This record gives sequence, structure tokens and C-alpha cells, in this order.
Amino acid sequence: MTSDELILASRPTGLPGAENFTVRQVALPEPGEGEFRVRVEVISLDPAMRGWMSEGRSYVPPVEIGAVMRAFAAGTVEASRHPGFPEGSSVVGMLGARSHALSNGEGVYRIERARAPIERWVGGLGMPGMTAYFGLLRIGRPKDGETVAVAAAAGAVGQIVGQLAKLHGARAVGIAGGPEKCRLLTETFGFDEAVDHRAPDMEARLKAACPKGIDVYFENVGGPIADACYRNMAMNGRVPVCGMISTYNGESTEGLSLAAYRSILVNRLTVRGFLIFDFAADIEEALTNLGRWHEEGRLVMREDVRGGGLGAFGAVLSDLYTGANTGKLVLKLD
Amino acid sequence: MTSDELILASRPTGLPGAENFTVRQVALPEPGEGEFRVRVEVISLDPAMRGWMSEGRSYVPPVEIGAVMRAFAAGTVEASRHPGFPEGSSVVGMLGARSHALSNGEGVYRIERARAPIERWVGGLGMPGMTAYFGLLRIGRPKDGETVAVAAAAGAVGQIVGQLAKLHGARAVGIAGGPEKCRLLTETFGFDEAVDHRAPDMEARLKAACPKGIDVYFENVGGPIADACYRNMAMNGRVPVCGMISTYNGESTEGLSLAAYRSILVNRLTVRGFLIFDFAADIEEALTNLGRWHEEGRLVMREDVRGGGLGAFGAVLSDLYTGANTGKLVLKLD
Repeated sequence: MTSDELILASRPTGLPGAENFTVRQVALPEPGEGEFRVRVEVISLDPAMRGWMSEGRSYVPPVEIGAVMRAFAAGTVEASRHPGFPEGSSVVGMLGARSHALSNGEGVYRIERARAPIERWVGGLGMPGMTAYFGLLRIGRPKDGETVAVAAAAGAVGQIVGQLAKLHGARAVGIAGGPEKCRLLTETFGFDEAVDHRAPDMEARLKAACPKGIDVYFENVGGPIADACYRNMAMNGRVPVCGMISTYNGESTEGLSLAAYRSILVNRLTVRGFLIFDFAADIEEALTNLGRWHEEGRLVMREDVRGGGLGAFGAVLSDLYTGANTGKLVLKLD
Repeated sequence: MTSDELILASRPTGLPGAENFTVRQVALPEPGEGEFRVRVEVISLDPAMRGWMSEGRSYVPPVEIGAVMRAFAAGTVEASRHPGFPEGSSVVGMLGARSHALSNGEGVYRIERARAPIERWVGGLGMPGMTAYFGLLRIGRPKDGETVAVAAAAGAVGQIVGQLAKLHGARAVGIAGGPEKCRLLTETFGFDEAVDHRAPDMEARLKAACPKGIDVYFENVGGPIADACYRNMAMNGRVPVCGMISTYNGESTEGLSLAAYRSILVNRLTVRGFLIFDFAADIEEALTNLGRWHEEGRLVMREDVRGGGLGAFGAVLSDLYTGANTGKLVLKLD
């Protein structure tokens, strides 16, 4: 039995790409007592990956050169000596970017595959969904009629943020790049307003879309878009911070302008960085609610599923940072 | 009966100064039913004044050109037709920069003058004390052994922040300009460490003073000092934000660098802007505790009392922004 593994070959300087990875075939031992083997079907491409590829400090230690790329993935158990993960069951977890993974079950969870396509379990029904859930509902806490703004709004997290805002009685304003994504926001995800951040008068459009200011800005992009949102916050606004994707590859080197930073003072904002693990005790609640709303048709989820196998990983990953994806970006293995 | 009033004559472009004010003598009617007259003895000089002098948006509307400068002040009731404020009682409130004020009692409070010199009631026993109290204890919430850092640490708010941190079992690191103030921090106010922000290796000194990172950075200065503190925060740190004095006159035009802003994400910080009025229900609790700790000798308070009357107001105010004061800055009227 062998497994194909995606190896980090070099650290990127700007955008990551195919040149940073190689595929290696390794022998995979049969599962020992308490272990099982997963045939990986989909690999999640996440903004945090750029940080994992760098030496700098982040949430977790960097991936070492020569090591398997860290990745969230989902697949099917095809051999098992673990009673909790029988053969044929479907699972999701930090399995790494590889075709087959040996696991002892740590950090791996079973999924009810019949309820949704497998790629959704690394998207709206997985970590991106939980990120939206905890960030918006535990930190943002939108009240009836308040305005919630989110950028990368057609992305994995943003699409859920907007819909959760609507489900909780708030107005949802989505910021995305280009007319196609903006149409998706209002027509498919039910945002009240879509603002194209490529428009030269982006900030004027943002102001028009948020006439009473932004009560909750869900921060996942950083850079000039974030700066404009900070400058247009309403009194007592909240800013859950889960990411700053525009800054990960050096495209944007600015933090917050003085006007944006002073908005924290003048508008008495609460800005809070978080990870879903900060809400570990409530993960089951989040997944139950996300699943229920999804089944009731109140939470639409869209993925951007790419083919090409492990060899395509680097090129697909770079699409995440240029915004070439629409919806949760996933690599499907054959 | 006449009153001397300090009039805002022009809006400053950089530092405010004498040229922005004129003194005008006006007739003051005798107190009507429910009114009383205060002879103002001390006028508080506060960082927020620079904002009040500008047209830009701030907490409150700007002072109009030709109007009396807004100011917190304390004095003695010398004529009264208000039962709550009898002749001879001492009061504090937003009385304005004037020698005599007519009041109906709105926003004016009686003080127990025998307990502390009158200037202290606009300092550690007044709004600056409450700002330190609520910011540190309600937002910062330092735990035993955690590190609290504050800049302008010899100032009205900073001196209280450091001592409250110590009273609650935390380490206090104060940042101030020059060896004299730094000595005051450790010798008089009991800070564990003092960092001179004029030292070329300021950030290295800050790191050395906070080897496990900063758990609570009490933000009242903004600019490069704030940036260094953000970059040296510990995981799950808190940043109560009550001011950004270094940015009010255009000395510092930077907000947060990318590294500082990313610290919110990487270290999962909570940053929150506040005013004491956000904690209005607990003002009595705060004043009671501050007064008790002061009387027990556990809370030392230092004021920098200046003479020269209303005509000196502009020059004294500019000292606040250049850091030429040591302790709570107050103008004493003759």
C-alpha cells in the first residue's frame, strides 16, 4: 500500500504556487490496533495555509521543508482496526495533503455523508462554517436591524456570515471582487447589498450600502477594504477578526490607518481576534445548528471544487489569494 | 458680579497654545431658584481637549469659536438657591474654563474636600481615576501575575493604572519620557519596571521588562509606543483604549503597523474603546473604591498644579501634549 503525499519543497516569498511543492510516493503500513486508513477524497484550501508555509510565528508551528503539507481533508475509511471509525464510514479532520492517511482518530470526526456532498464538510458544515458561526454570533452578536459587513463575502466564511446575519434579523452587506460574485451575493446568498471592491468608488458604495454605519464588521481580509470598514463603523460596533488574507502574501503591507485605528476609540469598538478552538466547548452546538439550517434550506452553501489531483494543489492554492475562486475552494482527488 | 471666561478664539493646526484663546469678562446674573454660583478653583487639563477644539468628529460636538472652552473644574459654592448645593460646599463638574460658573446642578457633584486636596478631585479621585478603574478592571481584567503595560505612565490615568494593577496582583510596567519620570514610576507609584520611551532601544527595553509578553496594554497614547506594545502582546491579551494622545496634534500620523494589527489575530487580542460613561451605573462603586484605597495609602496620587490664571491656560495645555507635565495637569485660579 502506498500513499501520495504533497511535500513542502520551498517557502514562498509572495504568492504560493506549484513551485513550492512536490509529490512523493511513500509506503503506508497497514493500520495497527486502534488505527484506520482513510482514502482522502477532498482537500480543503484555506487562507491559513500561507502562514503554515512561512517560518514566521502564527497559530501553529510552520510546516517544515520536506514535510507533508498540513491540510484539512475528508474521505472514506477503507481499512480499520478502530471501533469508532469502521470501514466505509466517512470522516473529516487534519489528515494532511495526501491520498491516503493513517490515523488513530485524534482530531478526526465522522460525518453523515448522506446529508451533504463531501466537500461541504470542509466548508459550511466544517471549520469555515464554525468560524462564521462563532465570530458572528459570539463576538459580533448582531441585533435586529443592525448592519453586518463582511469581505471575501462569496468565500467559504463570508457566504455563511452574511446568511447567519440575515437569519438573526440583521442586514447583510457583502464585499467581493467583480460583478459576478456580487450578483451571487444578492441572488444566491441573500445579502441585502453587494459592494464591488474593484470599483474605484468602493468606499462611497460602502457608505451608501451602510447608511447608519457598520455595526459588525467581520474581518477576514485586512488591507484597504478593512480600513474602509473600520472608518465606517457605527457606535459600539464589533469586529471579530479571523483572518487578514490580503496581507498574507505581501500584497498589502499596511495595518490600520490612523483614521481606522481611531475609530476604535471614537466609536468605542470591540475588536477581537479568535479561532474556533476558543469556543471548543460549543463546537457540537455550532455544527448542529449549521446542519439544521442547511437542511431547512435557510443556509445555502457553495463550493468551488477543482480537479487535477495533488499535483494541482499549488496552482489552486494561489487562486485562493488572488480571489480567483468563488465559494469554498476544495481540491478533489481522483 | 462678573466672571472671567476663556474663549476659544481659533482652532489649532498642530499643538494648541495661548494664541487659540482669549479671556473675556462677562456679567454673571445672581443665581435664580434652583441655581447656584461656583467660584472655580482648579481647572482640569485633559487630552480630550484637543479634540474639542477641532471641527472633526469626536465623543462630543466641538467647542464653537467664540464659545467658552469646555473644561472639567472644581470649586466652592459661594451663592446658592439650590438645596443640594449649599453655600460653602465644594463641587466638581463640567463647569467650563471660567472663574465663576452658574449651575443648576446638572453634571455637578459634591466632593468631600477634607479628604484630599481639591486638585485631586479632577485627577485620581475624578475622571482620570475612573478611566483607569474601568479600563483596567472591567476591560483589562488583569489576573494574578499577569503583566500590565501603560504609557504616559506618570500622567493622570497612567499612574492609577499601574497602581491598580499592583493592587490586583499583576506586574506593572510603565512607559514614560525621561529618567525623572521613570524614577517616579518605580519609587513613588510602585511600578515593577519603568521603560524610557526616549531611549533608542525602547522596544528592547520593553521586551526585557515584559519577558512573557504584555497581558494588558492600557492604550492612551497611540503612535510608535502603542505599536511596540501591540507587537509584544501575550496570547489572549486585552487592550482597553481610552485615548491616543500622541496622535491628537499630528505628531504621529500612523495608525497600527501590519505587525501590530496582525497581533490582534495571532494573539487573539481583545481591543476595546471605552468612555467612563459606558460604565455609568458603576461610577459610585469606582469612586468609593478609589477613595478608600487612597485613604488607606495604597493609591498614591500626584498632580502638577500650575498657576497663572486663565491667561496661562493655552500654554499649560500645550505642555500636556509635549509631556512637559508630571502627574495630573491642573490650572489653579487665584
